[in-house]
Amino acid sequence: MVYELYYWPTIQGRGEFVRLALEEAGAAYKDVARQKNGMPPTMASIDPSKEEHPSFAPPVLRAGELLIGQTANILLYLGRKHGLAPRAEAGWLWAHQLQLTIADVVNEAHDTHHPVSTNLYYEDQKKEAKKRARDFTAERIPKYLGYFEQVLQNNPGRGGFMVGSRLSHVDLSLFQLIEGLRYAFPKAMARLEPGWPGLVALRDKVERRPNIAAYLKSKRRIPFNEEGIFRRYPELED
Amino acid sequence: MVYELYYWPTIQGRGEFVRLALEEAGAAYKDVARQKNGMPPTMASIDPSKEEHPSFAPPVLRAGELLIGQTANILLYLGRKHGLAPRAEAGWLWAHQLQLTIADVVNEAHDTHHPVSTNLYYEDQKKEAKKRARDFTAERIPKYLGYFEQVLQNNPGRGGFMVGSRLSHVDLSLFQLIEGLRYAFPKAMARLEPGWPGLVALRDKVERRPNIAAYLKSKRRIPFNEEGIFRRYPELED
Repeated sequence: MVYELYYWPTIQGRGEFVRLALEEAGAAYKDVARQKNGMPPTMASIDPSKEEHPSFAPPVLRAGELLIGQTANILLYLGRKHGLAPRAEAGWLWAHQLQLTIADVVNEAHDTHHPVSTNLYYEDQKKEAKKRARDFTAERIPKYLGYFEQVLQNNPGRGGFMVGSRLSHVDLSLFQLIEGLRYAFPKAMARLEPGWPGLVALRDKVERRPNIAAYLKSKRRIPFNEEGIFRRYPELED
Repeated sequence: MVYELYYWPTIQGRGEFVRLALEEAGAAYKDVARQKNGMPPTMASIDPSKEEHPSFAPPVLRAGELLIGQTANILLYLGRKHGLAPRAEAGWLWAHQLQLTIADVVNEAHDTHHPVSTNLYYEDQKKEAKKRARDFTAERIPKYLGYFEQVLQNNPGRGGFMVGSRLSHVDLSLFQLIEGLRYAFPKAMARLEPGWPGLVALRDKVERRPNIAAYLKSKRRIPFNEEGIFRRYPELED
């Protein structure tokens, strides 16, 4: 089976968390909107007149007869299927809980440049964005990443992973979260990272996974840009 | 086994989605912080020095040896265990996807009164709150609830439920979402609800479930107030 991923073709965005899991798993997939003449993701996966289980928003993964939406839900599915989560329910629920907490940070990162409305341009909510970004870097990043560092330190499993003794989708997503936060808030991250030695080591380890390393060097990895979730607006760090 | 729910004792908040599922299931549970001399939820369930799987924030459910955080994750667990979701993976994944989309609306509802920071009082972000609330009622509520109405209309199952032909945690949470939005934004909801006949009928049906009806009449149901997620600030509808 070849998976079909429906996501915006020009950004990493939330789709990137799914791409990383597919790449690590070595799964065959089409990034549909990036194919020649590929349809935009909304057309193909969200139209309720065409699908019984339409999604509210991309990313969406087609897996045979299944059409699965919500980033964390897609990772829950892929994690169980490709050994990127523990087999026992207690384990995959725990991994999923952490993934949902990552999704919360990602939402908050998005809202630093869109605190008022996703329907307005950043330029039209810049003043509010500055306030929200200041709170995000001063309060929220330390609270969330400090939590993840603590979870990692508490994990009795070997290998420096978040869950048990094997790589899971949580590790892949934390790699992406740290990459995104470094891109968007380089000053804050440079200041904060010494407090999270475990997470930084985990990030480096994920980057060296053969499939991930190959992916990051490939054209399939879209560079960060100011259309995605993690955006570099230097004025938000002033 | 008696479940233990850790959540703030004076608000419905995110914990209410869990309470409704426990009540509908007729499950025995302690709402720990509401017991005599009950500990605040943070003390008991989030302290990483005491728990291997601490949560970032409440609600948290203790189920025997499991400690489960993230509202939607708790409902995923309870849904599978108490027949509040389909048994087959395709079904419970779909129910969970809808639950995660409800969680997204709930987050956005929260941010109407806290668009800048959860660490500031509402009064200190009132101006931004007005802007965000205007966007939420004009754009986001119609988009989300219109989506849920469409899903309900598309569902080939009988009975007017969201997933298949039986009540699921999704129906319970949509009841709570509509109640919350009616409380917070009565004018917008009065204007919009005629567009969602299926959802309104579903809300009424949930309210009449014997266990839910008994719960809503009991003291266990905390009234809405301005400390929770859904808050009535009339100026946000002006």
